[in-house]
Amino acid sequence: MELSKRIRNMQESPIRKLVPYAENAKAAGRKVYHLNIGQPDIETPVEFYNAVKNYDEKVLKYSFSEGSPQLISSIIEYYKKYEMFYNKEDVLITNGGSEALLFSLIAICDDGDEILVPEPFYTNYNGFALPVGIKMVPITTTPENDFRLPSKEEIEKLITDKTKGFLMSTPGNPTGVVYTKDEVEMICNLAIEKDIFVLSDEVYREFVYDGEEFYSFGRVEHARQHVVIIDSISKRFSACGARIGCVASKNKEFIANVLKLCQSRLCVPTLEQEGAIELYKLDESYYEKVRKEYNKRRDVLFEKLREIDGVICHPPKGAFYTIVTLPVEDAEDFVIWLLRDFHYNNKTVMMAPAEGFYATPGLGKNQVRLAYVINEEDLRNAIDVLKYGLEEYNRIK
Amino acid sequence: MELSKRIRNMQESPIRKLVPYAENAKAAGRKVYHLNIGQPDIETPVEFYNAVKNYDEKVLKYSFSEGSPQLISSIIEYYKKYEMFYNKEDVLITNGGSEALLFSLIAICDDGDEILVPEPFYTNYNGFALPVGIKMVPITTTPENDFRLPSKEEIEKLITDKTKGFLMSTPGNPTGVVYTKDEVEMICNLAIEKDIFVLSDEVYREFVYDGEEFYSFGRVEHARQHVVIIDSISKRFSACGARIGCVASKNKEFIANVLKLCQSRLCVPTLEQEGAIELYKLDESYYEKVRKEYNKRRDVLFEKLREIDGVICHPPKGAFYTIVTLPVEDAEDFVIWLLRDFHYNNKTVMMAPAEGFYATPGLGKNQVRLAYVINEEDLRNAIDVLKYGLEEYNRIK
Repeated sequence: MELSKRIRNMQESPIRKLVPYAENAKAAGRKVYHLNIGQPDIETPVEFYNAVKNYDEKVLKYSFSEGSPQLISSIIEYYKKYEMFYNKEDVLITNGGSEALLFSLIAICDDGDEILVPEPFYTNYNGFALPVGIKMVPITTTPENDFRLPSKEEIEKLITDKTKGFLMSTPGNPTGVVYTKDEVEMICNLAIEKDIFVLSDEVYREFVYDGEEFYSFGRVEHARQHVVIIDSISKRFSACGARIGCVASKNKEFIANVLKLCQSRLCVPTLEQEGAIELYKLDESYYEKVRKEYNKRRDVLFEKLREIDGVICHPPKGAFYTIVTLPVEDAEDFVIWLLRDFHYNNKTVMMAPAEGFYATPGLGKNQVRLAYVINEEDLRNAIDVLKYGLEEYNRIK
Repeated sequence: MELSKRIRNMQESPIRKLVPYAENAKAAGRKVYHLNIGQPDIETPVEFYNAVKNYDEKVLKYSFSEGSPQLISSIIEYYKKYEMFYNKEDVLITNGGSEALLFSLIAICDDGDEILVPEPFYTNYNGFALPVGIKMVPITTTPENDFRLPSKEEIEKLITDKTKGFLMSTPGNPTGVVYTKDEVEMICNLAIEKDIFVLSDEVYREFVYDGEEFYSFGRVEHARQHVVIIDSISKRFSACGARIGCVASKNKEFIANVLKLCQSRLCVPTLEQEGAIELYKLDESYYEKVRKEYNKRRDVLFEKLREIDGVICHPPKGAFYTIVTLPVEDAEDFVIWLLRDFHYNNKTVMMAPAEGFYATPGLGKNQVRLAYVINEEDLRNAIDVLKYGLEEYNRIK
């Protein structure tokens, strides 16, 4: 009795597979600083909880397969700030950005089709693509080049008759790259020329620093039939456990077909949608406050990283992740060693080895992804642990 | 720019595609009795809402990919009543029974593989199978034979080298059939002989009438490596909008691989899991009360249906659905006519044409599925409308 090839070929999540080492360290009484996962410590706005608590229907019924009309209205209003103009019938509510992406991939790709994605990329993209037979084809970007996109000609070479679309992430996880208007338009123009889709994962839209402008793929007027926005409240409102996302597109055929998938799974949880309606009504001061907090954490992280010899890092312009090159040969070995064999004043640190974020074999082997979602003091302590850990590791290895 | 073949080949949900006709009837001021959808009007136990309201973490974090440990413990305790013995590591929490089934199908089938399923079957089974390239192969059962399974020899003939498992529903949607111990063991023995899986959708486990015994596939000791239980709180606790389900199996390789899919989508909503923990702690009196209520509704429904000439119906032993044969040629035409062209004292009724529940072309054309989830008075009125509607329809057609 064999399981399917597609599931056996799936890797365990490279972010989560090291969790047992962290659990053991905690069981041994050590404090573990989690720089490995994008779980913010910022409080979920109380408006969310209030809306959930005020829900007073006696029967918790199925909601609409397409999502709560009030939530869709809230999202449409919110999008206008970014010059993203959508109507009610252009938006479907999903179980997190995860389901938005899975459904979009199924809608545009058959088994064996390909999606072009700048690498390094969010490892779970593979987790959605592999079970439905889709191949992620990397557009390689490098820390040396600040993870900017290659030229249009370079990218064009990667497009085959199996290529059904691009999957872009801006601001990007794990690189923090924020694509410029020129880059966004270049990808859109390629999509138009080749008659393929652009899926744009913009769940970190608010987290842009240094006066950089965020330019949504949803703004490119002439590409509106090609662009699909993947979105989520998880990071924006520090509500990862709510699992509310959405997909938005002006392509009516695309939306009508994704709706069939939405109907199969009936609906998204009712209570979380009630909460999300209020979140999307928060005014600019909320975003400003959170952005400032992450900006400060980013600055602290890089101030501390620069104190460490041999570390190569560049402050990213967006999101709350960064790829850092360490003075080690095998970052995964180092990460495991930190958790299993090292502590500094009974503290250690957990990071995500970056190799799992690359599709091209061999890339990222000496890199880690860090998430700066913990508070300033913890961040400072965590990077001190990293510094002493690197010294000790390189002394004994 | 074409969408994928797999999504274009998906039908719109046969249950939901008639919704616009119902909306129009309501817009014209008519009362529509919904016998078409399994949305119970029974109140969600207040214990659910209290648990949600008492949640007091400031940050709504990701929960574990495998689900809340407390919820898993609650479910394991509950299963013991049915002589289903599972440990913590055998259960994964999912986004409703829907995700439990989708993930299980992906784990056992590759593109082009087949699943044997007694027809008529829940139409959404196709909604999960088609997008991932899986073919539902029907084991035909008939109202004349009370939807009992054919002989082992008959079923065996349907098994090919593409067949990866059975998908059983007991008590069944849409037939209300409750499989006997002999039927359950026969399917399990076939699964063992052919080395394939049995996925058993048991979300209506509590709703069994006339002293019939529910016998879970999870009870068959010698088939434990083959059996996967698909479950959900939606119907059991009248909490359809919570979207909490689970998958349970003693097959460790199966669970380990489904966990990879769970990790891809990160987690299930936190708040609903808090509520569900309390639901699974409710004592037997809750189930007894709800079972009595549905039993009464079933009896009322059949008392009224028997008043109508030419209607063929048999009270089912379980769930809260029944397949009824009507004295019409084309049940879908009749259902649309009721919504669009007919009313009795400004009331009409919505039913689900049964053809969409069959995979074999032509079957079920003169049948409808009725859900007895509305209260007694509404049920009586609804069947009166159906009676007068049938008379008028057959007079003018």
